Amino acid sequence: MKAPRAAFICIGSELLSGQINTHQAWWSLRLRRAGFDIVGEESVPDDLGSIRGALRRAANSADVTLVSGGLGPTFDDITREAAAAAFGRKLHFDPKLWKAILSRFARYHVVVPEENKRQAMRLKGAKILSNSAGSAPGQWLRVRGRSVVLLPGPPTEMYPMFEAVWPKLVRLHAGEIFPAIYSIRLSGVPESVADERLDAVRARWPRVRFTILASGGEISFHASALELTAAAAKTARARLRTEIRDAVQQFAHGEDDASLEVAVGERLLKRRLTLAVAESCTGGLLGGRLTSVPGSSRYFLGGVMSYANSAKINMLGIPARLIARHGAVSKECAIAMAQGARKKLGADLGLSITGIACPGGGTKDKPVGRVYIAVSGPERSQIVRQIDIHGSRETIRGRAVTAALRLAFDAVE
Amino acid sequence: MKAPRAAFICIGSELLSGQINTHQAWWSLRLRRAGFDIVGEESVPDDLGSIRGALRRAANSADVTLVSGGLGPTFDDITREAAAAAFGRKLHFDPKLWKAILSRFARYHVVVPEENKRQAMRLKGAKILSNSAGSAPGQWLRVRGRSVVLLPGPPTEMYPMFEAVWPKLVRLHAGEIFPAIYSIRLSGVPESVADERLDAVRARWPRVRFTILASGGEISFHASALELTAAAAKTARARLRTEIRDAVQQFAHGEDDASLEVAVGERLLKRRLTLAVAESCTGGLLGGRLTSVPGSSRYFLGGVMSYANSAKINMLGIPARLIARHGAVSKECAIAMAQGARKKLGADLGLSITGIACPGGGTKDKPVGRVYIAVSGPERSQIVRQIDIHGSRETIRGRAVTAALRLAFDAVE
Repeated sequence: MKAPRAAFICIGSELLSGQINTHQAWWSLRLRRAGFDIVGEESVPDDLGSIRGALRRAANSADVTLVSGGLGPTFDDITREAAAAAFGRKLHFDPKLWKAILSRFARYHVVVPEENKRQAMRLKGAKILSNSAGSAPGQWLRVRGRSVVLLPGPPTEMYPMFEAVWPKLVRLHAGEIFPAIYSIRLSGVPESVADERLDAVRARWPRVRFTILASGGEISFHASALELTAAAAKTARARLRTEIRDAVQQFAHGEDDASLEVAVGERLLKRRLTLAVAESCTGGLLGGRLTSVPGSSRYFLGGVMSYANSAKINMLGIPARLIARHGAVSKECAIAMAQGARKKLGADLGLSITGIACPGGGTKDKPVGRVYIAVSGPERSQIVRQIDIHGSRETIRGRAVTAALRLAFDAVE
Repeated sequence: MKAPRAAFICIGSELLSGQINTHQAWWSLRLRRAGFDIVGEESVPDDLGSIRGALRRAANSADVTLVSGGLGPTFDDITREAAAAAFGRKLHFDPKLWKAILSRFARYHVVVPEENKRQAMRLKGAKILSNSAGSAPGQWLRVRGRSVVLLPGPPTEMYPMFEAVWPKLVRLHAGEIFPAIYSIRLSGVPESVADERLDAVRARWPRVRFTILASGGEISFHASALELTAAAAKTARARLRTEIRDAVQQFAHGEDDASLEVAVGERLLKRRLTLAVAESCTGGLLGGRLTSVPGSSRYFLGGVMSYANSAKINMLGIPARLIARHGAVSKECAIAMAQGARKKLGADLGLSITGIACPGGGTKDKPVGRVYIAVSGPERSQIVRQIDIHGSRETIRGRAVTAALRLAFDAVE
């Protein structure tokens, strides 16, 4: 069975001036999960020849080409013209499109600049994709049975427009295939260990495409196969799910896109527990991640950034002599921080991080990257772990937060 | 004067499976600042034909092609083979290179897998670029006077190797041009306002390339021009600097890559002041950003994530009746939080954020995106600001942190 193919083109000189391209990752995830093969991505500047060349190449190699950017009203927005040149299509002024643009501006009581007329230029045969978040309409072009979809660059406009057209693209280009897809999210395990555990599953399923992505101490493992019927896809997914869970269940914190902070929150809610934190080297990143979840106020009370030792003493009630004896980066201090957070904030659980993230901050006994994390519960119950993280200051801090979240996840089970 | 041109190729199926490509942004910044034009970027899967095609296209259009990925030892690392095919070069086993790989493994007391021999395959005529952080050597190929540089994918390996070869590439391909470069960083101002202020500068300098990048409430404005002599470049830079600063000095927090958190830290250090924070809706992100700066412990004491009202009352000493009367999202509460942080942590300054980041959390009087930030200093001195931020939960939180940092920056002046 042949998978449908997709290509991406991201247009805009800003993408070649330091701006990070996130469309590529976002599209990749969505399209792979629908069974598409991604044949490539190009970022091109606002240059007619470059865009035309990229459009031709993509439409030659892919069934679906997704294009972002260059649909604005200004002189350097030339995606429409480049598509006209690439596929030999005429561009014509569409009065209906212009009326829609005018009425959008009227809603915001804004005078329409004359240059916006360029946004009413329509490629011959193109289907117009309306944009509820901006003035740039999209255009869906069919080229020799293939699809070329022009979308605006800003994510707030592009995302909803993609969602609107996506089911139609799938039906048209991937309608006769049925993807069997399963994803699992792991934490608290090195990538190499997870990878090895999953080897046997991979060996049993030669037709299935597997991807493993590790980032910041979390691992995402993804399996997808194409089947001829919906029933076969359902069966394959169920079997894949069982086998993958058997291999790595102990490290899993969720399926699909479940983030670790969401998983921790769900467990806390289920057990009706509240959480408070105390952070030293991470300075608030743990709290920041916990509160990235809408509704986290139902279980997260807050915490203390005890960066200076005085803050550990004054805000968490840690005895100065404990710090003097064991150091601020120690198992003892991590436990005292977790207990202090729990007590001072009146939470069921306290979670803490203390470590050395700074190059030059290490000693022989306690090297850079040494981190202690602790969780404290009722009746003086506690767990503390020592971890050593290699990498930059940001790597150390990010992984320390993930490790602490995983500790809480395990503790609340 | 013609600018030298550069192209990028990022190789690896993971880049088309959901991983965000950061090489492109990093390279773009570096090369533009040396006066290069970036003609395009391609991300290609681990497929010989795709890589070969991308290499040929890039070498046809650019003086310097930077390539990352596919230099590992496994079967899907085929960049060497693709380059051999693209440019008609033989690949041969290099015993010296193999010896270097062996001695690297010996240092780590690891047995060398046989498949690593592939990493000792050298393209005819290529200069080897040594890798101190991994086993994949890079290769620098000259193709009809142009440079194609093969580098490994992992940033920890690629960055230092790029730094080592970069001065030589500049000398070879941009040696006869002298870039005049000036960058300024702004905050506390909408992009449209900054853009308008800079219009006059742009009009006076038609030859200069300007870029404006806005992200998370901060703006980076960059000017670069190519001159024929070092003296001319120096003069042009000085004039650009004066004109740009005249236009936007009041919004500037630094030049070049100066981040706002670094600028705040520098001002605090200079005035020998310490800072503590209190965060509600941002839940620790402000502390996280402040402590991303190495050495921040010299001025940042810590703070309180006062997510729940009980935390505001217990940890910051805010009267319950103040919250009952004005609400937790109010000017009054922001001031009390800043004062509480200052007092409880024993800092010279207290900085606070309270706001509504959650869709559904807003009211008619206080809509989603309403944020109050306050700074409190000695003798009950204080500043408080109300801001309204449009966007997602993460946008609101990120911009609230930037606004608070900017408030501290202005307050410490």
